[in-house]
Parts: sequence; C-alpha cells; structure tokens
Amino acid sequence: MLDKVKIEELIKEQGDIVRQLKAAKESKEKNKNYALDPFTSFEKTISIHHLEYLNEYLQSRSYLCGYKPTNIDFEFANILKRVTHNINQYHHIYRWFNHIYTFDEMDKRHSDIANGKFLNDLLQCLLDAQVGYISNAPQVAEEVAKLLDLKAQLSNEEQATNGPQKFTLKTPKGTRDYSPQQMVIRQKVLDKVVSVFKRHGAESIDTPIFELKEVLTGKYGEDSKLIYDLKDQGGEILSLRYDLTVPFARYLAMNKITNIKRYHIAKVYRRDNPSITRGRYREFYQCDFDIAGAYDPMIPDAECVKVIQEILDSLDMGSYTIKLNHRLLLDGMFEACGVPSSKFRSICSAVDKLDKSPWEEVKKEMIDEKGLSEEVADRIGTYVRLNGKSELVEQLLKDEKLSKNKSAVEGLEAMKLVLKYCDFYETSSNILFDLSLARGLDYYTGIIYEAVLLGDTTNGEDVSVGSIAGGGRYDNLVGMFDPKKKQVPCVGVSIGIERIFSVMEAKLATIKEKVRTTEIEVYVASAQKNLFEERMKLCNELWKNGFKVEHSYKRNPKLLAQLQHCEDQGIPLALILGESEIQKGVVKMRDVISRVETEVERSKVIEELQKRVAQFNNVP
Amino acid sequence: MLDKVKIEELIKEQGDIVRQLKAAKESKEKNKNYALDPFTSFEKTISIHHLEYLNEYLQSRSYLCGYKPTNIDFEFANILKRVTHNINQYHHIYRWFNHIYTFDEMDKRHSDIANGKFLNDLLQCLLDAQVGYISNAPQVAEEVAKLLDLKAQLSNEEQATNGPQKFTLKTPKGTRDYSPQQMVIRQKVLDKVVSVFKRHGAESIDTPIFELKEVLTGKYGEDSKLIYDLKDQGGEILSLRYDLTVPFARYLAMNKITNIKRYHIAKVYRRDNPSITRGRYREFYQCDFDIAGAYDPMIPDAECVKVIQEILDSLDMGSYTIKLNHRLLLDGMFEACGVPSSKFRSICSAVDKLDKSPWEEVKKEMIDEKGLSEEVADRIGTYVRLNGKSELVEQLLKDEKLSKNKSAVEGLEAMKLVLKYCDFYETSSNILFDLSLARGLDYYTGIIYEAVLLGDTTNGEDVSVGSIAGGGRYDNLVGMFDPKKKQVPCVGVSIGIERIFSVMEAKLATIKEKVRTTEIEVYVASAQKNLFEERMKLCNELWKNGFKVEHSYKRNPKLLAQLQHCEDQGIPLALILGESEIQKGVVKMRDVISRVETEVERSKVIEELQKRVAQFNNVP
Repeated sequence: MLDKVKIEELIKEQGDIVRQLKAAKESKEKNKNYALDPFTSFEKTISIHHLEYLNEYLQSRSYLCGYKPTNIDFEFANILKRVTHNINQYHHIYRWFNHIYTFDEMDKRHSDIANGKFLNDLLQCLLDAQVGYISNAPQVAEEVAKLLDLKAQLSNEEQATNGPQKFTLKTPKGTRDYSPQQMVIRQKVLDKVVSVFKRHGAESIDTPIFELKEVLTGKYGEDSKLIYDLKDQGGEILSLRYDLTVPFARYLAMNKITNIKRYHIAKVYRRDNPSITRGRYREFYQCDFDIAGAYDPMIPDAECVKVIQEILDSLDMGSYTIKLNHRLLLDGMFEACGVPSSKFRSICSAVDKLDKSPWEEVKKEMIDEKGLSEEVADRIGTYVRLNGKSELVEQLLKDEKLSKNKSAVEGLEAMKLVLKYCDFYETSSNILFDLSLARGLDYYTGIIYEAVLLGDTTNGEDVSVGSIAGGGRYDNLVGMFDPKKKQVPCVGVSIGIERIFSVMEAKLATIKEKVRTTEIEVYVASAQKNLFEERMKLCNELWKNGFKVEHSYKRNPKLLAQLQHCEDQGIPLALILGESEIQKGVVKMRDVISRVETEVERSKVIEELQKRVAQFNNVP
Repeated sequence: MLDKVKIEELIKEQGDIVRQLKAAKESKEKNKNYALDPFTSFEKTISIHHLEYLNEYLQSRSYLCGYKPTNIDFEFANILKRVTHNINQYHHIYRWFNHIYTFDEMDKRHSDIANGKFLNDLLQCLLDAQVGYISNAPQVAEEVAKLLDLKAQLSNEEQATNGPQKFTLKTPKGTRDYSPQQMVIRQKVLDKVVSVFKRHGAESIDTPIFELKEVLTGKYGEDSKLIYDLKDQGGEILSLRYDLTVPFARYLAMNKITNIKRYHIAKVYRRDNPSITRGRYREFYQCDFDIAGAYDPMIPDAECVKVIQEILDSLDMGSYTIKLNHRLLLDGMFEACGVPSSKFRSICSAVDKLDKSPWEEVKKEMIDEKGLSEEVADRIGTYVRLNGKSELVEQLLKDEKLSKNKSAVEGLEAMKLVLKYCDFYETSSNILFDLSLARGLDYYTGIIYEAVLLGDTTNGEDVSVGSIAGGGRYDNLVGMFDPKKKQVPCVGVSIGIERIFSVMEAKLATIKEKVRTTEIEVYVASAQKNLFEERMKLCNELWKNGFKVEHSYKRNPKLLAQLQHCEDQGIPLALILGESEIQKGVVKMRDVISRVETEVERSKVIEELQKRVAQFNNVP
C-alpha cells in the first residue's frame, strides 16, 4: 500500500492536470453560475451530456447514493421529469426513474436523508463531465476518475492506519468491560459458588454462545423478542443464547443423556432495556446448577434449595428469604377461581409482578388487559396474598375450593413433601411458602423458587431488595428436542451472580479496601545503572523456582520508582541488586511494608525467599 | 393458550363453514379448472376481483413474498401485463409493477426462487377472494381469515409445546459442546497457563463478546470477511469479536490506560471453514498475554518469549521451536529485493505460507498472483530460506543489500538485542531466527514470533506439526482508537489453547486414563428401605462440615446400585446407614477401592472422615 504522503503528492499532481484541462475550457462556460442551490443551478444547465453521464453512473446503481432511496433520488427525479421528455432513451436512468416513482409519499417521508456533501460531489461530477464533453470528454473523464480514485485511497489509508476513529469509543449498549479489580472480585465470588456446586457433586459443561435459531424458538413466550439474532451471512440462522437452560436441554437431548448433575457458568444475552444502575445488563453471567433425571419426588428439588442457601451463606449476603410455590397449585388455584385455561400463563405473568407492584395494580391489569372479571380477580387476590410455612399447606388442603381441585391438591402435597425435606436439610428457617411467587418463564412444570435479599431490618420491617437466585422444575423441556419426545425431568437453580458482583463491589467501595490485582511475591530492583543483565538472570532463576516475580521493563530505572511500585502494588518483598552487594556476593532483601532491609547470601536467596513467601501466604 | 385438541376442533368447524360457503357458489365456477400450472389457470380466470384483492394485498408489501423480488414477482408481472391494460387504476399494484419492471434480466437471474407452496397459497387466496366476491365477499373473506388464523395457531402450538423439533439437533457449524470430561481437561490446562501468567504479574480483564462493528473495521485486512455480524435489530451495529487483541486496544484507548500487563482467556469467533479434525473451530478460546507501555527496547518482548517457553514446558507438550523474525527486517528485505512498497503486505502474506507450502509454490503465487518479476521473487527466495541464531544476524548485517537498507538494519539490531535477552532468560535453546516467519495480521510493527510443536524426531528429522502459540509487537493499534492518535506500544502472545486441548485429549485417550469429572469424597448410602430421613440428615451434617457429598435421589435405592455408583465415579469413601448400625449408634465406613468396611461411632464420623479425606487428597 502506498503511504499517505505519496498519495497526497499524487493527488496534488492529478488535481493540477484536471484543473488545467478545465481551465482551458472555462471561458466557454463563464456565463454559467452553479452557486447557491445546486438543484436550481443544475436544472438550468442540464444537457444531453449530463444525461449520458448520469445514465452511465446509474448502470451499476439502484439509487444515487447508498442502498435505499434518499431525498436526492426524489429531488432529482422531479427535476428530470420537468426538464426532459425523453428519459426512456436512457435505459439506466429510465430504470432508476421508474423505480423511484414506485415509492409513494409515505415512503418518501421515511426515506433516508443523504447529506449535502454527496449531493455536491455528484453534481460536481456531472458538471465536470459536461465541461469535459464539450472539449475533450474522454480525457477529462479519465483524469477526473483517477483523481477520485486517489482521494478514495487516501481516505481508506487514513482510516486504516493514520486517522483517529470518528465513532464514540464505548462498549455496546448494556455491556461493560471488567477491570482487573472487578475480575478479582468476580473470581472470588465464582470460586465460592463453584465450591458449593462441587460439594454437591456437580460436573461442568460448556456450550457455544450461539445456537441454531430454531433451538430457541418457542421457549421463552413473550420474551422471545429479546433474543439477539446473528446476521444471515449465508449458512445457518443463529441466535445468541438467552439463558443456559435451553442449551442444557438441547445438550441432553442431542447426547441422549438421561441423568446428570451439572453446573454451567457463562454469559447470556438479552436485548432488554437494561437498568445498569440496578445491576442489569444485556450481556451478563448466569450461573446454573441443574439436576436431570427421573428420581423420586422433591429429593433433587430440596437439594437445589439447599444449594441456594449454602451459596448465599458462604457469600455472606445478609438476610434473605427463599420463596417457594408450585405451578400445579397456581394452575389449580386459577382454575378454582374461574380463570379460563387459555389465560393461565398470562395471569401467571400478572401475578409475577406482585413483588414489584401492589395488588391493586396487578388486579387492574388482570381486569383491563387480561380480560378477567372483577369477581375472578378478587378471588385470586385472596389467595396470592397468602404466605407461610407448612401450616399454610395444611390450611389450603382444607380450603373449600382448592381441596376439590385435583391440580391444586397435587401441588399442595408436593409442597408438603418438599417442606419436610427442607427440614432435614435445615433450610426451613430461610424458607417461605408464598402463593404470589409465579416466575415468568413458560417452561416450569412443578416447584418454583426465588431467593430475595432482605434489606435493612432495623425498622422492624423486612424490605425486599430484589431477587438474587431462582429456578424450578421443568420436566417437558428436554422432550421438546427429542425426535421421540422422550422426556428427561429436570430441576435447577440459577444464581443471580451479577447482582452478587454489584453487592460485593459496593461493599468493598464502602470499606475502601484496596484489592490486589496481581499475585507478585518478589520484585527484583536495581540500585544502580547497567545491572539489567543481573536483574534478568535473577528473575529467570526465581521464575524457574516457581516464584511470582517482576522487574522494571526499563534498562535503568530509578530505585525510588521501583520501590514505590512495590508499595503501590502491595508486593511484599523486594530484592535489590547493587554493585557493592554483587561484589560481596549478597543481595539486599527488603520487606516492603516494614521497609526493613537485610543482606542475604546470593546462593541462599531461594531458600530464604521460600521461607518468607510461606509466611506471607499463611497470613490471610 | 388453547390446547391442541381444542384448536383442531375449531379448525374443523371453521373449515366446514368455509366449505359450505364455497360449495354454495361452486356451480357458478364449475367450468373453470385451476389444476396443473397455477399461472396458466390464473391467467384464464383473472378478474377485476382478483385485481382488487391483489391491490389490497400489495398495500403493505414491496414484493409478493419476502424482502427481495422472486420468480413469482416476475411471472406475475408478465401475466398482468398480458391480461390487463389498466393496471394504473390500482395504485398498489401499479407501484409494485413499476418496481418489478426496474429489474433487468441480470437481476432476474440473481433473484430468489420462491417455493411452490407459497405460490399455491397466494393463488388460493386470490381464488378464494374471487369466489367470495361473486357471492358474499365480506363473509367468505372473514371466515377464510379466521380459518387461516386458527391454522397458524395450531402450528405455533405444535411447535411450542407438543411437537418434536423438525430440525437436526446439532450445535452450529464449527462449534462444539464441552462434555464434563473435556471440561476437566480444559480446566487443568487453563490452570497451568494462568499460573504462568500470574507468575509474571499479569492482571486479568474481560470485555464483551461483541463490539461496535466500527471497532473491528480496518483491523484484519483480508480476514475481515470472516467476522460474524449481528443482525440489525434496531440500535447499534455489532459484530462478534474476532480476537482479543483489538478489544484490548479499544479497552486501553477508552480508559486511557498507558501501561498494563494483562491476560485474557475467552472465546473468539471466525466464520472460517473450520478443519475440526485439525482442532480448528469457528468458536474457540484464545488465551492472550500482553504487555502495554512505553519501555526500553525488547525487554517486554523477551519476556513474552519466556512466557511461551514456560507454558509449553509446564504443559509437557514435547519438543518445540519458537521462531522469531522482525517486521522491519521483512520490509527492508522486500525493499532491498525490489518489491514496491504497496506490495509489502501481500508479499508478506505469501511468505507466511512457507510453513505449509514449498518455496516453488509460494514463488509462483508471488509472480502469477502478486505480480512480482521472477528475478525479484528469486531474490526474496534466497533470504526467506535462511534461519539460524545470532551468527545469522551478524551475517545479514554484513549482507551487501541489507546492510544498505535502513529498515533492515534496524530490524537486525533489534533481533540482536532480543537474542541476547533470550540468553539471560535461558530461552535460547528453543529459539530460531527464521526469515520465513511473516505472521498474517496487518497490525504487527516489530518483533514477531511463533511456536511450533516438533513431531517425532526418531528419524533424525524435525517435522513441524503446527503452530501452538504466536504473537508480536503492535505499536500502532491503540492509537487507531484514540481521538488524539496517542500511541500505546504493545507486545503480546496468544496461546493456541484449542490445539493444546486437542493434544491433551488425544494423549489421555491413548493411555486410557479415566478422568474423574466430580470431586465427591463421600457417598452416603442406605442398606435398607425407609432410611432417607437419616440419609438426608447425615448428608446435611457432612455438607455443613465442608465435605463433598452425594446420595441417591431415590427414596429406596438398592445397596448394590449405590456401591456400583461409587466405583464407577471413583468416589473414594462410602458411609452406609443400616437399621442395626443406627441402633448401635455407629455407621459403616467403606473404602471403595479396597472394599474394606469399618464401623465408626456416629459421633466420631466427622473426625474420622477428616483424617481419611486428608489422606486421599495427599495422594496425587
């Protein structure tokens, strides 16, 4: 590729040629004036030569500029209609003209606006062409073309290597970079979460970030509109995964796996309008634990609840409640209240909003938007405001309406069982059976649960600050992927790890604790110039012995700068090389915090460091 | 949502209504025949009613089907031209018609082919409309619309809840799931790689999986065509990241970071035609280590080479060579050979193929495709076949042509320096200065390097089995993102972690070693029925004490099945609950491998387990 300077020179030369050619003919054109409105001036001066040039120009184009009609297309078409009556002589103009006339007024209002610069350039080309035609068209046209080519090359060159980017420097909407500090926090959180998953015997799997679009189709109800699609670049039609549950079900069906206990920590994608202040993003981590397999009722389900408890406790997230409910009970309750079965899912969505909206609002939605009668809505209202523990299960089993409903009774019996198992697992104190819990997703078929952090309780009131984990049983999802509809019952939990990251970050910001982002144990410094060979050799020796070591990337760094770096970075130890020490066969070892320096024999450096580093690593 | 059966019933009813309405009018239409070629039959029967219907149909459409003209558009336009002379009476048909006529023969050949099913459906609609119009148009039209609605609902319903998926169950082309076994291997490899990065003081960052498309534009030369774009769903135009280097540069510029040493392990995306057998995918992990900052020449560069060496050694990857070269030397050498500067990058690409193709082939490409004279190509040939160590640097510094070239001398002096530093870091024995190393990417500006595994050397010949790590210096990339063009010099290395995974998997397959995919230490079994309460309580106690524990999810599992599970999964210890033991206040503890069982007091189980598990964990 030519460099910028060369291209600029060539442009200058080529510009001169074009200018000379034009100047030679300028007298002939002197009486013409292209100033002010280019359209008006063009309309006055249009000639057969313009049309010929335009015809050629349109041979390879559908529109004057870009891939959609613009205001320029419409303006130009009007001019041509006014000034000429034989457009059909020009095949390509005619083709373009007819096409432009297929757009009606509405289309025009929605068309793109091309910018003035392009319009001027185009008109200039047409005018140049005219001038050239009168005198020596082929020559001018050729030279003009060369000039335009060079200009294009320059602009490419500028963009590719020299020019600054013109766009705002940012990550896509709803996404963020993780800084080294954030990565350290994230890793600490994930390590704790993973250790709970492993304590319960989970394996790990990973799936691609995108799936065939069909895999995701029909799994998310109304939320499908939030799926990110990939552009069709030929080949398969793909979408970014929306959660980890559907890819897990696809994985089970595809590999004919009928039982597995796995965790999966990975990013998922939702084209939501994210509330970043509330820790919600378009790209975010999910952290799932699922148990697949046909087992006895509620045993794996109770373990999922246990896993939530262990994770929230190990992360020291403060007080929380795990709400439980059952889809069969919800369905039975809706049926008993007189909701038509076709409206179960949409009423479920309405109930799901009870954690954020008061009952009156939800009731209004049920009546005005979902078409329930006030009577039916009120009946639902009496149930969904109930919560409690096993005594509530007993009470509802005696409820006049529910006790007659098969589905409701089945759901209540299941609740009774899981509450018993939660007793064995000592999760009962954190649990609340809550009839307002509905969960949005379509695929749940049994127990559902959701953990909410409780805010400040000093006023004697529990204020929920939001959902931090959730999940439930989905027995039919895997079957949707199996050619023979073979079901694999599943139950799982998804940890709201991004909320946890946010809480942790906020905590650390409050206590102003400095997080170390590297694990360097020893810094190799030099006290004088020209010791980089000794420095590099010592680093090499330490790396070989497994120490985490760094040194300055400058040949002759200042000692003070090196020691300052150690203090800033929290590096506990420094080895300082100096000419006199080298002659004595020793190295200075500095404890960075106490600033105490001791001389160590060069041959005993490794041994001494092993002792010192062990000390530091034992201090938590 | 209505269930399938109800919808099917409704469809039946609605179908009857439509059929009756049509039948009532059928006699009037009896002489007409719509069979065989629908176009021909349509042409014979077209009426004003068809045109009115079509006009309405086209009100909201640009084409009869889809977003591009199809064969149906062209056929229909021809029919309409033949059969009617007043198309312009129908505004929307006229608009469509004119539009279709703007496409010439070439466009038509490249237009889409719509399938016959759509054509039939469309004609059927038109015919239905005609029948309806003659008798009682509004009624039939309405009933037909209801019928179509129901059918659509049924097909949604089938897809959403009952029907098996019709598509092949697979991951997208060029991608794969990781099974639990693969995840374990992957984690082991990554742990080793990360520990090397940390030993050299690297921090970690993460960036979103996609970037604004503009961020990637102009960075990858010819390879840009391999970038995955996201569909434009309104909002920003996004692409999946192609590597981790460009997002890193964007991150530095955006956050005005002028020095950092970071690693980043994450997936990248390339729409390549992957050779999966050779371990190449469209979605794959990259594993990058980069040092950004203005430092003294070649010091960070030599550390990157050191990092490659430590990683390949720690992974026990067998013998390998790290090839080194310098972009300035390549440029100077090309210039000295008489290559025009505009061809430097494309000749670089040709040279880059020398690891896979013989010189004669590469020479042919230089002459036939890249337009070099044979003489120039031959001159390049004498250089690119050279490789060696520092003595080759000295030899080339005395070379008649190169010694006169500023760029070549600069490159050679840099090579001299880095080879000296590699001596200090004891990487020299793995290093080869190789003039044929070119590296494909445009953004390199200084040293470049690539590690290749050497195959079996028993025949006395080193056979390269492929590149496993590579990188180099890129001093201008960050500046491309900075509004003031501020440069941040960078040098880095990318580990070919997918190749390493493949090699590790192959190794494990050869030695047939079974990989444990869980870390369960203790299995809680029951010897008789109805002990699930005791089992669950014991599990809970063990989890509380930090043990990795599982038990059966069945209420009454068979003892043999439980013990078999321990042996299959490599779980070292089992606790067996039995009625008699419970009465005695003891638990049976079984060593799974030796099958030796001992009785332990219930109150001392934790203590005993702690001892036993510590033993197992100390055995590597």
